Amino acid sequence: MSDSAATTAATAADFAGGPPLARDAIRRLPGSKIREVANAGMGLNDVLAFWFGEPDLVTPAFIREAAKTALDAGDTFYRHNLGLPELRACLSEYASRLHGRVDVDRIAVTSSGVNALMLAGQLLLSPGDEVVAVVPLWPNVTEIPRILGANVTRVPLHIDPATQRWTLDLDRLLAAITRSTRMVIVNSPSNPTGWVMPREQMAALLEHCRRAGVWILSDEAYERLVFDGSLQAPSMLDLAGPEDRLIVANTFSKSWQMTGWRLGWLVVPPTLLDDLAKLIEFNTSCAPGFVQQAGIVAVRDGESVVRSFVDELCRRRDALVGALRAIPGLEVGEPEGAMYAFFRVDGQRDSLALAKALVRERGLGLAPGIAFGAEGEGFLRWCFAKPAELLVDGAARLRTHLGR
Amino acid sequence: MSDSAATTAATAADFAGGPPLARDAIRRLPGSKIREVANAGMGLNDVLAFWFGEPDLVTPAFIREAAKTALDAGDTFYRHNLGLPELRACLSEYASRLHGRVDVDRIAVTSSGVNALMLAGQLLLSPGDEVVAVVPLWPNVTEIPRILGANVTRVPLHIDPATQRWTLDLDRLLAAITRSTRMVIVNSPSNPTGWVMPREQMAALLEHCRRAGVWILSDEAYERLVFDGSLQAPSMLDLAGPEDRLIVANTFSKSWQMTGWRLGWLVVPPTLLDDLAKLIEFNTSCAPGFVQQAGIVAVRDGESVVRSFVDELCRRRDALVGALRAIPGLEVGEPEGAMYAFFRVDGQRDSLALAKALVRERGLGLAPGIAFGAEGEGFLRWCFAKPAELLVDGAARLRTHLGR
Repeated sequence: MSDSAATTAATAADFAGGPPLARDAIRRLPGSKIREVANAGMGLNDVLAFWFGEPDLVTPAFIREAAKTALDAGDTFYRHNLGLPELRACLSEYASRLHGRVDVDRIAVTSSGVNALMLAGQLLLSPGDEVVAVVPLWPNVTEIPRILGANVTRVPLHIDPATQRWTLDLDRLLAAITRSTRMVIVNSPSNPTGWVMPREQMAALLEHCRRAGVWILSDEAYERLVFDGSLQAPSMLDLAGPEDRLIVANTFSKSWQMTGWRLGWLVVPPTLLDDLAKLIEFNTSCAPGFVQQAGIVAVRDGESVVRSFVDELCRRRDALVGALRAIPGLEVGEPEGAMYAFFRVDGQRDSLALAKALVRERGLGLAPGIAFGAEGEGFLRWCFAKPAELLVDGAARLRTHLGR
Repeated sequence: MSDSAATTAATAADFAGGPPLARDAIRRLPGSKIREVANAGMGLNDVLAFWFGEPDLVTPAFIREAAKTALDAGDTFYRHNLGLPELRACLSEYASRLHGRVDVDRIAVTSSGVNALMLAGQLLLSPGDEVVAVVPLWPNVTEIPRILGANVTRVPLHIDPATQRWTLDLDRLLAAITRSTRMVIVNSPSNPTGWVMPREQMAALLEHCRRAGVWILSDEAYERLVFDGSLQAPSMLDLAGPEDRLIVANTFSKSWQMTGWRLGWLVVPPTLLDDLAKLIEFNTSCAPGFVQQAGIVAVRDGESVVRSFVDELCRRRDALVGALRAIPGLEVGEPEGAMYAFFRVDGQRDSLALAKALVRERGLGLAPGIAFGAEGEGFLRWCFAKPAELLVDGAARLRTHLGR
């Protein structure tokens, strides 16, 4: 047996002998630290759960009825990769109303907002590509590039001492964009911080990326959830045209309380639409027709749902932020949008341990800041899409725990 | 301006100047040639459409009712990444009944069968990995590895002249597995050929892959659709244990006529389950709860649906194969499973042109063999999950077109 054959045999035997495992890149992906805290609270009674990003409201009945009607009508067959033409037309009209003309040849329906982000990544990211992301950030947004073999450079937000608001140092973001950058990811309004990117910063980023030939992936899942009365955050769609290197991801989950439906959409340059249709074919093929029928009704007839949800969210935000700011030693950045307070607890260096202690000892379920990246260490995230009395009760539990 | 800066500026300007396009690997993915034929038939009346792989039956009412009941009950929230515990338990019981013990710690619910295949690819395939696939094959199965940067070696089936059945040369498959092979993909019963892999070949492949430390991805979407009265094709699950490098993908689409629901599942070694849950989080997060409730009812109470569907399919297969074999110059491999006839047309070297001519000139909608890889050139695929009288009418149109 030659040396080479001996080596081969040994390698194969070693490999065959080990346990069956996923590839290293997947094993290295961190598990959800939010879920780790939730698991720590398993089986406990009287837990106030604010850890997940989900409204407490069931999807409005008229939206559910549309799905039921479609099921009765036998809408149980494959649908077009890009979505039902009627839904795409509704989304084109909706986006055009909010942002100026967005033609239907830029719109694709996806199997959830996170699926929209995955598709955007698959469209653009090759192994070894460089991505720049504004953080702290919902972990899915930064893990998807890593699954696809890309590297992520993180540019942190900070709380401005003067305004107590989350703020981006734009120069720092632009400086992080190098010749090897393929894509910049922005999420505004932001999960977990509630930061809303000012229109002027968006314009400057777009201008810079145009010159550099860099893509922008804008996750606008929370675009309707802002508390300045405008009912829409600044959007990259307000500024960019169909020829720009821009992909905007959106979802039905938050605006219309449809988290469990797994329905979202993408706005892309028309030159990407055929390639996107191919990728949808290879990921989920299409969203269910009866789910899309519910989406049509939500977009077309759901404006009052959005309004009353935002009104209620604003009251809840004020209740929570007020209660938290009354606790000494908390630094609470004002959430201008989304549905989270992301706040620093003075003297805490281990948010995961703190969150676990809070659920075990006080029945208070919060997400640890570290779940959103190293920049989130020392913070906690609190979803305030819950009844105000529960928020106030929770704040009292936190105060007790901290002994302040 | 230094040389280096000048180069930078020129490069960026060139890049910024072109149209926004997807990355090369995605642009190179072939579009669906089946869809190309369907598009050629757009707007025509009286088209008999046998091109897509979809039964003609609406999902049974009792399954649809389960989804409607869940919607009424307000099941519109996020669900566990791995699926509802009740559905996973039902799938464990179902798979154990068919194949011997398959514990629930090996089962994950997915957002369709193709999504199951994409997740399996993401779990195991790194850029540059080598994959071996038995072909001709539903193109999604071989394109997913390419999206993930892997290379695919194709091992073709052939029609045995003696039996007129599709046959795998096992030695050829085993010879294609090299030291750099990461995964072997088998789809049995097969789309498009209807080939059913014999149990002895499965056993030999498993034994070989065990020795080589190579993964098997077994796409068993059509496992119930076999025409020998057994109601189940041989499965890798009959032979392999939880410690084997085996992933089995399955779907609700075919057995219970639920194509439009986008619901599937994976069976994996228990050592992969946590990593799979992470990947599901980053792909679609979960399947809708109300869709999973319908899945529970299908698996638990749908056995009679499977039986009567297979009985009817068998009659339809016989009607189609009989009609096709009556046409001179067709080579019709006997489909032992799935729901397709895949047949060679003597003297035809351009299946795409033939399929387009058939729809335009005769109103007969078939899938061109080239859609399933170069090995399929000269063939047509005919889905026979349609009423027998339409199949016979279609065969007459084909005969007229061929002038035979």
